[in-house]
Amino acid sequence: MRIGIVQGPNLNRLGLRNPAKYGTRTLTDIIADIDRTGTDLGFDAVHTQSNHEGDLVDWVHAAEVDAFVVNPAGLTPVGYSLLDALKDSTRPWAVVHISQFHAIDGRDREDIFAPYATLYIAGAGWIGYSLACRALAQDAP
Amino acid sequence: MRIGIVQGPNLNRLGLRNPAKYGTRTLTDIIADIDRTGTDLGFDAVHTQSNHEGDLVDWVHAAEVDAFVVNPAGLTPVGYSLLDALKDSTRPWAVVHISQFHAIDGRDREDIFAPYATLYIAGAGWIGYSLACRALAQDAP
Amino acid sequence: MRIGIVQGPNLNRLGLRNPAKYGTRTLTDIIADIDRTGTDLGFDAVHTQSNHEGDLVDWVHAAEVDAFVVNPAGLTPVGYSLLDALKDSTRPWAVVHISQFHAIDGRDREDIFAPYATLYIAGAGWIGYSLACRALAQDAP
Amino acid sequence: MRIGIVQGPNLNRLGLRNPAKYGTRTLTDIIADIDRTGTDLGFDAVHTQSNHEGDLVDWVHAAEVDAFVVNPAGLTPVGYSLLDALKDSTRPWAVVHISQFHAIDGRDREDIFAPYATLYIAGAGWIGYSLACRALAQDAP
Amino acid sequence: MRIGIVQGPNLNRLGLRNPAKYGTRTLTDIIADIDRTGTDLGFDAVHTQSNHEGDLVDWVHAAEVDAFVVNPAGLTPVGYSLLDALKDSTRPWAVVHISQFHAIDGRDREDIFAPYATLYIAGAGWIGYSLACRALAQDAP
Amino acid sequence: MRIGIVQGPNLNRLGLRNPAKYGTRTLTDIIADIDRTGTDLGFDAVHTQSNHEGDLVDWVHAAEVDAFVVNPAGLTPVGYSLLDALKDSTRPWAVVHISQFHAIDGRDREDIFAPYATLYIAGAGWIGYSLACRALAQDAP
Amino acid sequence: MRIGIVQGPNLNRLGLRNPAKYGTRTLTDIIADIDRTGTDLGFDAVHTQSNHEGDLVDWVHAAEVDAFVVNPAGLTPVGYSLLDALKDSTRPWAVVHISQFHAIDGRDREDIFAPYATLYIAGAGWIGYSLACRALAQDAP
Amino acid sequence: MRIGIVQGPNLNRLGLRNPAKYGTRTLTDIIADIDRTGTDLGFDAVHTQSNHEGDLVDWVHAAEVDAFVVNPAGLTPVGYSLLDALKDSTRPWAVVHISQFHAIDGRDREDIFAPYATLYIAGAGWIGYSLACRALAQDAP
Amino acid sequence: MRIGIVQGPNLNRLGLRNPAKYGTRTLTDIIADIDRTGTDLGFDAVHTQSNHEGDLVDWVHAAEVDAFVVNPAGLTPVGYSLLDALKDSTRPWAVVHISQFHAIDGRDREDIFAPYATLYIAGAGWIGYSLACRALAQDAP
Amino acid sequence: MRIGIVQGPNLNRLGLRNPAKYGTRTLTDIIADIDRTGTDLGFDAVHTQSNHEGDLVDWVHAAEVDAFVVNPAGLTPVGYSLLDALKDSTRPWAVVHISQFHAIDGRDREDIFAPYATLYIAGAGWIGYSLACRALAQDAP
Amino acid sequence: MRIGIVQGPNLNRLGLRNPAKYGTRTLTDIIADIDRTGTDLGFDAVHTQSNHEGDLVDWVHAAEVDAFVVNPAGLTPVGYSLLDALKDSTRPWAVVHISQFHAIDGRDREDIFAPYATLYIAGAGWIGYSLACRALAQDAP
Amino acid sequence: MRIGIVQGPNLNRLGLRNPAKYGTRTLTDIIADIDRTGTDLGFDAVHTQSNHEGDLVDWVHAAEVDAFVVNPAGLTPVGYSLLDALKDSTRPWAVVHISQFHAIDGRDREDIFAPYATLYIAGAGWIGYSLACRALAQDAP
Repeated sequence: MRIGIVQGPNLNRLGLRNPAKYGTRTLTDIIADIDRTGTDLGFDAVHTQSNHEGDLVDWVHAAEVDAFVVNPAGLTPVGYSLLDALKDSTRPWAVVHISQFHAIDGRDREDIFAPYATLYIAGAGWIGYSLACRALAQDAP
Repeated sequence: MRIGIVQGPNLNRLGLRNPAKYGTRTLTDIIADIDRTGTDLGFDAVHTQSNHEGDLVDWVHAAEVDAFVVNPAGLTPVGYSLLDALKDSTRPWAVVHISQFHAIDGRDREDIFAPYATLYIAGAGWIGYSLACRALAQDAP
Repeated sequence: MRIGIVQGPNLNRLGLRNPAKYGTRTLTDIIADIDRTGTDLGFDAVHTQSNHEGDLVDWVHAAEVDAFVVNPAGLTPVGYSLLDALKDSTRPWAVVHISQFHAIDGRDREDIFAPYATLYIAGAGWIGYSLACRALAQDAP
Repeated sequence: MRIGIVQGPNLNRLGLRNPAKYGTRTLTDIIADIDRTGTDLGFDAVHTQSNHEGDLVDWVHAAEVDAFVVNPAGLTPVGYSLLDALKDSTRPWAVVHISQFHAIDGRDREDIFAPYATLYIAGAGWIGYSLACRALAQDAP
Repeated sequence: MRIGIVQGPNLNRLGLRNPAKYGTRTLTDIIADIDRTGTDLGFDAVHTQSNHEGDLVDWVHAAEVDAFVVNPAGLTPVGYSLLDALKDSTRPWAVVHISQFHAIDGRDREDIFAPYATLYIAGAGWIGYSLACRALAQDAP
Repeated sequence: MRIGIVQGPNLNRLGLRNPAKYGTRTLTDIIADIDRTGTDLGFDAVHTQSNHEGDLVDWVHAAEVDAFVVNPAGLTPVGYSLLDALKDSTRPWAVVHISQFHAIDGRDREDIFAPYATLYIAGAGWIGYSLACRALAQDAP
Repeated sequence: MRIGIVQGPNLNRLGLRNPAKYGTRTLTDIIADIDRTGTDLGFDAVHTQSNHEGDLVDWVHAAEVDAFVVNPAGLTPVGYSLLDALKDSTRPWAVVHISQFHAIDGRDREDIFAPYATLYIAGAGWIGYSLACRALAQDAP
Repeated sequence: MRIGIVQGPNLNRLGLRNPAKYGTRTLTDIIADIDRTGTDLGFDAVHTQSNHEGDLVDWVHAAEVDAFVVNPAGLTPVGYSLLDALKDSTRPWAVVHISQFHAIDGRDREDIFAPYATLYIAGAGWIGYSLACRALAQDAP
Repeated sequence: MRIGIVQGPNLNRLGLRNPAKYGTRTLTDIIADIDRTGTDLGFDAVHTQSNHEGDLVDWVHAAEVDAFVVNPAGLTPVGYSLLDALKDSTRPWAVVHISQFHAIDGRDREDIFAPYATLYIAGAGWIGYSLACRALAQDAP
Repeated sequence: MRIGIVQGPNLNRLGLRNPAKYGTRTLTDIIADIDRTGTDLGFDAVHTQSNHEGDLVDWVHAAEVDAFVVNPAGLTPVGYSLLDALKDSTRPWAVVHISQFHAIDGRDREDIFAPYATLYIAGAGWIGYSLACRALAQDAP
Repeated sequence: MRIGIVQGPNLNRLGLRNPAKYGTRTLTDIIADIDRTGTDLGFDAVHTQSNHEGDLVDWVHAAEVDAFVVNPAGLTPVGYSLLDALKDSTRPWAVVHISQFHAIDGRDREDIFAPYATLYIAGAGWIGYSLACRALAQDAP
Repeated sequence: MRIGIVQGPNLNRLGLRNPAKYGTRTLTDIIADIDRTGTDLGFDAVHTQSNHEGDLVDWVHAAEVDAFVVNPAGLTPVGYSLLDALKDSTRPWAVVHISQFHAIDGRDREDIFAPYATLYIAGAGWIGYSLACRALAQDAP
């Protein structure tokens, strides 16, 4: 099994900024964690990050994967083009937010991805990605 | 570590009704799954289910646990008393919805628990409980 | 045919309070009326009343009936657990309000049951229950 | 007793269209049913149907009846002129919707008649008219 | 000068119903009052009343007048066709409500005519028509 | 009969500013017009204008009049103290707006006086005051 | 193929009023244009216009056509009866607005027809009708 | 005089939790305070607390008291059944919130009791109950 | 201890108007009551009333007191300047409404003071001021 | 005449995905159709598609065309930068949606382009582009 | 050039209260700063401050200046009379807020002045006044 | 000191389009103005403009500056990724709009940047950038 991990705008700065909010692990650390879980559970992860929504849309179009795990970050309330690409992919996809999205930004930012995601995980920190992969790999619901 | 699993109204009927929506696993099956994960990861789960919000409030008051995993079910938009009990417990607690709550009932039912939960998982089916326990047991963010 | 009549909170006080609003017939009188109509039309009515939503949920789970007639009373805007029990019962069910609910409390109280009920009757007074049973017993649309 | 039955726009096409939604009984069939109930219960029904709101207003002005039963159909969210005629008639009047109005169109169409009707019945199919007449004839509420 | 007086649905029943709300003067009385004011101030009034919005639209199209005075009655929140006819007439027009519209129905009924009327009078009772004619006849702002 | 004419903030500048919107008549001109109408119809007008809401409240408390005519001007959406003084005066009172208030400011400014006024006139220009006095003097509904 | 062209209230006045907004072509001109397109593309157009919603409903009921093109004009936000007739006709139907409806009246008038139309064209002026017929005749979508 | 003191869900934990928010006085302390005030002012207080809304409804039905003082706690936005019981009791009743309810939870929780209470006190801490009793005992408005 | 009592617009008319709503006690009576309570409990009250918000702001700036008790009256939904003066005073302050504000005007008037007040009392009639002073004098939470 | 055809995000996948919703014609097919219509009607079409809003903005800035036809796709509710580029171009421009936008996504996605477009066509499938070009080429209103 | 500086309610207390929010500079200091900038850039500033909206309105009426700089303070959401005076002055005027108004009070207080101001500056502290004067003095757009 | 000037989509076209709205100065002119102010006040400005939000995010990540001045232009209501980059930069940043944003687009476009900006300037035309730099350079609040 092959899972595409899609990291939205500003996530290339994870661990380099705002440790009180997101911890000190960098995106490289998180990718390594996901890959290690992949080895354990028998799935391959392929990764992308971009600050350009268009790049993420192109990547989703081209990805040869069985499922997606997406942290839309700044695109959460406005990334309709990325959302359409995911919906049209006809594959299951999970939304992951590192911090508890509802609690922190729920008043200010609507999550347009939430109503369409197969799976939604928020607040589990950097292990949220692994939990999502685990659920998708086990052919959950 | 000890985790309290709180199952809201009607969940005693899981697997006995509406298999298209919730699958065929009964609450007994799910409890066994959680306990098995507990054995693997080294935590004890204690369980309750009630159709009476007052019973769940009493149980949360009395529970000697390190964390809670809660599926509020029908109390999702109205269970302020249960919510207050969880908030006042000063322990981390996760909300788990079996199906993707946003997708199915998001227009009709607000989730009053979501803004206060440490962790939020929806759409992972019956393994959602285990994922939540795994995250809480690993001392996630 | 067997119809379960579910009376919500405070309805045990019918006829004992507020006669200008609800008339002077007690719940006992109303039960007798429904039973008499049952005799005429060939159905059995089984009755419950509780001020505890949990009791009503338990009763609906256990009821061996072909249809329900429900006056949710104070649960009208908040009884999601009772609503879920009715929806999951896979049987037809009617909502009955003694007074014309829209006219009196429509501004203050949303009826969360209305969108899912098979049949909705308000304002017919104590004969509303019999009308609902009559409609359900005749296999109406 | 004499009851005026007011059928709103498009109801002359009942049974001739959309049987999945409204069944196969025509307006003629329904009128016959109501008249038969009238014979049983001792009331006379007089009937009108029009696709012109103005005609219905004129008819209500001229009707020499003791009560009205109205299916406003397409006038449900906009028929203020018909509503005023009914309110000014100083007689009791019932709203009847063949299908469960809340369930089907509740999101799209407000029922401006509901807050003022003496009696409200929805979802009982073609026997809804007879139930309404029965309630009005028994001097209900 | 010539003023067209347009009376909306149900106003043919003025004085015949609901005297507590509208007084006991009939439409015939009011027409006589307006005509008398016309004689005093030097304008001719031409009158129409209909329960059919289409008739009022046709009448406005055909009217050879210098101004209109309109009581839209039941069309107040929904008479867009009549409103369009008035707006397209390129003549000044006044809205008159017999009772104080805001006070009585303001919560329930929006007045779609109000934002476009040259002149708006509510609560002056039957002399509101004469006041409006007086203002229009004096070439008010 | 004695009528108190209450002119709100900025109306002392009438005719000195913005002639395209309010014409060129000054407050002195308007007062003279009202007084002339008073002579014709047999009522006395007493006048006040202030840019201080508190002054207007004091004046309403002290006024020995049979009715009020009020142009709240800038107090229209916020003058609750003036509104309370008028409501507590137990006398009839009219709101007058020189221009058609709904048309011009209806989107931006709610009129908190409108629901409580006996009489409401907008768009009649400077003769609106006289029309209001005329209606109040004739003991209109 | 046969297409019914339904022109709503006031459209009989097209070209006779407000040329800045709607141009100088009359309804007769437009009908001729549509017929000419029909000759070119091989469809017959049948026409109706009325200021009475009821007439349009009657006409839709009786029309023996394969599709409808409708300009609801003043009925746009309130013509539920016409909308029901179109929906129940089980034939494709297009909404045409001469001017760009959204741009001009979008803040004030909701288009209740838009969500149900097969095809929606606004802003194309008088050729909008021909474009709609062309699309319907080519078995579009 | 006899006053029923109704303590809602979680209030049995007062003083045992969250001292920064509610102080360190327990429910037992507060009951003693109220009783002491009762002795001073000449009223008897009878007490109940439950985490089950149904229990509180039953208690209100059965209570032989002259007035109620209610802290609805978690039932504040959803306890319509308790509210109905209080309204139907035909006795005066006060709402007391220990902390200033508006300030703390006003954005998240509507107080459905507030519009119907005779008396409303928030922010006075544990002496709020005594103040409410004092007001009710003095036959305040 | 010294408490400043701030009475908003129109309250100089208490007892002189509308006895059904506010009783027959005048502001002078109420001031005497408060002073008597002050003597009992050992606090001094200083009093102001004005129909000018600016006067109240000036008074709050100059007041040498330990706490304020404020009845904002007509300033309740709009007195941001008075509110700012109270917030900036860094002293505790209570809002008192004589009648139950929520019940009577809750739909029409927002209370902008409520979210910031230390203490909120409504519906206790003229003794509400004394209750507020008692709570502030006892160093309540 | 020269028309710029602007295809928004994901439209490069037309015909390759979701045939039930968009048919099986690819973007290449559609471009060929538009060009063929151009040959017939005497206009040149120039084409662009991008998943990057910035690319579309750049293209609109540089385009030497007389009009634009735009399918904003995923940018429909959020593409303010593209919208500004079109508005500032001072040329007429049409919005085209392949499926009936209102019907399918109207509840979820606002069309920010609609209020400013010269022409709006939805639901005509792939011929919508040609219809729009035809209208723009004929110098429609 | 001459600029009128209008300071709203409570600003006479600047620097005397709440230094964490507004700094320690008093209104006298700020006036000196503005005057110094005036000397540098060649404009005269004239100053007013009042806690009475009416005083500010009177001052704006009488001011012989070329522009206004206004900090409405507590009048920000309710000062329609001051706003009208500024709008009617036909001179350019700037709104200045010392702290970043949107950030601090944006949820609670609408700024009714913002849509009409020529220039809007918030968050620049005490130099905001000088920046505004600089912009107005340079004949900015 | 070093200030990063961030110009959003379409601003490369300043002065080349729409002179009535934005004047005739080009972006090159404005950059020269800012640099000249920098020379006067002792700060260096570094500039970027892009029609791609992703480019602006990348630039903010890489910028070695002490503060930012941002005109988000078309990103104003939707640029959450740019907003996150600015918030995470931990440096002060100003929003500048050339025209008075509230006045022109306030109804249509929310400014998601406003609540988080240190400083907000709108309506000062091209000198707004210099004013913002001046305020940031003087270490304003």
